[in-house]
Amino acid sequence: MVHRFTPGQKLNVGIVGATGLVGSMIRSILAERNFPVGQLRLFASPRSAGKVLDGVVIEDAASADYAGLDVVLFSVGGDTSRALAPKVAAAGAIVIDNSSAFRSDPEVPLVVPEVNSHALAHIPKGIVANPNCTTMAVMPALKPLHDEAGLKRMVASTYQAVSGGGLEGIDVLARQLAHVGERASELAQGGHDALLPAAEKWAVPIAHNVVPLNYVLGEDDYTEEELKLRDESRKILGIPGLPVSGTCVRVPVFTAHSISLNVEFERPISPERALELLASAPGVELSACPNPLEATGKDEVFVGRVRRDPTVPHGLALFVVGDNLRKGAALNAVQIAEALIE
Amino acid sequence: MVHRFTPGQKLNVGIVGATGLVGSMIRSILAERNFPVGQLRLFASPRSAGKVLDGVVIEDAASADYAGLDVVLFSVGGDTSRALAPKVAAAGAIVIDNSSAFRSDPEVPLVVPEVNSHALAHIPKGIVANPNCTTMAVMPALKPLHDEAGLKRMVASTYQAVSGGGLEGIDVLARQLAHVGERASELAQGGHDALLPAAEKWAVPIAHNVVPLNYVLGEDDYTEEELKLRDESRKILGIPGLPVSGTCVRVPVFTAHSISLNVEFERPISPERALELLASAPGVELSACPNPLEATGKDEVFVGRVRRDPTVPHGLALFVVGDNLRKGAALNAVQIAEALIE
Repeated sequence: MVHRFTPGQKLNVGIVGATGLVGSMIRSILAERNFPVGQLRLFASPRSAGKVLDGVVIEDAASADYAGLDVVLFSVGGDTSRALAPKVAAAGAIVIDNSSAFRSDPEVPLVVPEVNSHALAHIPKGIVANPNCTTMAVMPALKPLHDEAGLKRMVASTYQAVSGGGLEGIDVLARQLAHVGERASELAQGGHDALLPAAEKWAVPIAHNVVPLNYVLGEDDYTEEELKLRDESRKILGIPGLPVSGTCVRVPVFTAHSISLNVEFERPISPERALELLASAPGVELSACPNPLEATGKDEVFVGRVRRDPTVPHGLALFVVGDNLRKGAALNAVQIAEALIE
Repeated sequence: MVHRFTPGQKLNVGIVGATGLVGSMIRSILAERNFPVGQLRLFASPRSAGKVLDGVVIEDAASADYAGLDVVLFSVGGDTSRALAPKVAAAGAIVIDNSSAFRSDPEVPLVVPEVNSHALAHIPKGIVANPNCTTMAVMPALKPLHDEAGLKRMVASTYQAVSGGGLEGIDVLARQLAHVGERASELAQGGHDALLPAAEKWAVPIAHNVVPLNYVLGEDDYTEEELKLRDESRKILGIPGLPVSGTCVRVPVFTAHSISLNVEFERPISPERALELLASAPGVELSACPNPLEATGKDEVFVGRVRRDPTVPHGLALFVVGDNLRKGAALNAVQIAEALIE
């Protein structure tokens, strides 16, 4: 099976989950980047099938015939991906899947093109996985540091945006903020329970709050999201036993995930050298105070606050912010498709 | 000089900075806790002098005569404390100071009563310092774990509320939220610069954002706030060389600071044992998902997400949330005054 395309060749591209937040962004990023689209086909749930988007009639993802497509970008839930992606791959397309369904499959490459595009050399199942949005923000920053000094361990505390939970996440925060409205500053003192929005989607309200427990607890009481950060970092960087302790926290920010990192290396690396490496790293932009509003809508991951972590021999502390919808999802998927064009 | 008071004795209490956010809270906490106040005197800037608060005429802090006071609680800027506190102490009162002015002074005890009230045995300058609000939230949780297993190193990433910046901090967030208003969800995609509030008080806007650079940079590019966390933790826990790497981040939350902690101990300590110790620790309440809205207005520090940190031999990860105005400032100051009554 040929998994590479020729420069100049137009590709027939499908988007499964075309009406969702990431699906919509994939459409605009394909256009922005002048991706060589021949035919574009859009797939969604039966609810949206028949509607027209950008002049294209949406097809029912479950019943459609996928023959003739070269690349199909999936942005749907894990269960749908698990059921549908193998069929689409069997019909001849390369699937680039944004769910967690195949990320830990040893026969499915998990790719951040700046970091491990070499993994695209073998795509035995015709499926490539797009990493989790938190892992994704971290990888372009850690890769050059790992190449220089050998990553030994990683501690990460995150500040994740609600759009990681799709349109529903955005809607929940917007409604909770509106619920409190102009009386928000009264929350500065206790005793305002009547003013608080009810918890929705997350364990406790997200507006004017911080939520340190997302998703269900798994191994050793780490959440699924925290275990993804560990497992995906190991796979992408190629460090099978990398010790990782992540604390994934949701904050009342619409887009762009921030990560406070404390990393230890095998060999010495100074903050000055790290900054030098980061300054020329692909997909990385240095910032004195990297922040979500700065990173939203940008392709690069913003990195700053680089300094020595004095609690370990060769340690660095740094702060990384990346748009979870673009680099964290849609952009990386399109970049994988671009990397398939030799 | 006698620095202890007798149970049953009424104390003449002064509050310097009585009109501020923490000053107001000190007044209400004295009442809540039935602190044995004899005479209450309130001090503030000349701007407020002459006004009446709770039936008490506010005095000009700079020119007042402090004779006859037993305890004076200061909640003003470091410069004012530095100039005024020694005079008030010389007039015979014990000063409990909430600024950073005296915290690193070896002749000034820095006290969290649940942790190191023994330090109140010697108050050579008549001044006791109240720790920084971030350090304060962490101490009641770490103390029992340190006693059990010997704290060896600490990594902390914070999620700090705007009321740490006083009434001005609250006002800035409230105004920035109002500026964006109901169009907030549009921030989920880039290209909405016109919608963004201007940066005020902090390096970048705080509404719908996360600010990883507070205050000025000091030693090794750590901020003053991060260095306070290090130095005050060392002094309060009595571990002079404790290695600490802190990343202090401001989030759009009105009150209660959250801290994601990764700590290493000299000796083994399981998450189960840690939970057992925390369950009976004074000033600590366990929570499955500790969060600022839960902690606001409460006296206890909320602790949860306790699990093994597998990146070090005897490591724990945990999440701590405490009301920065109460335990983080006003409550602890009053608790110090209570501890002075034998």
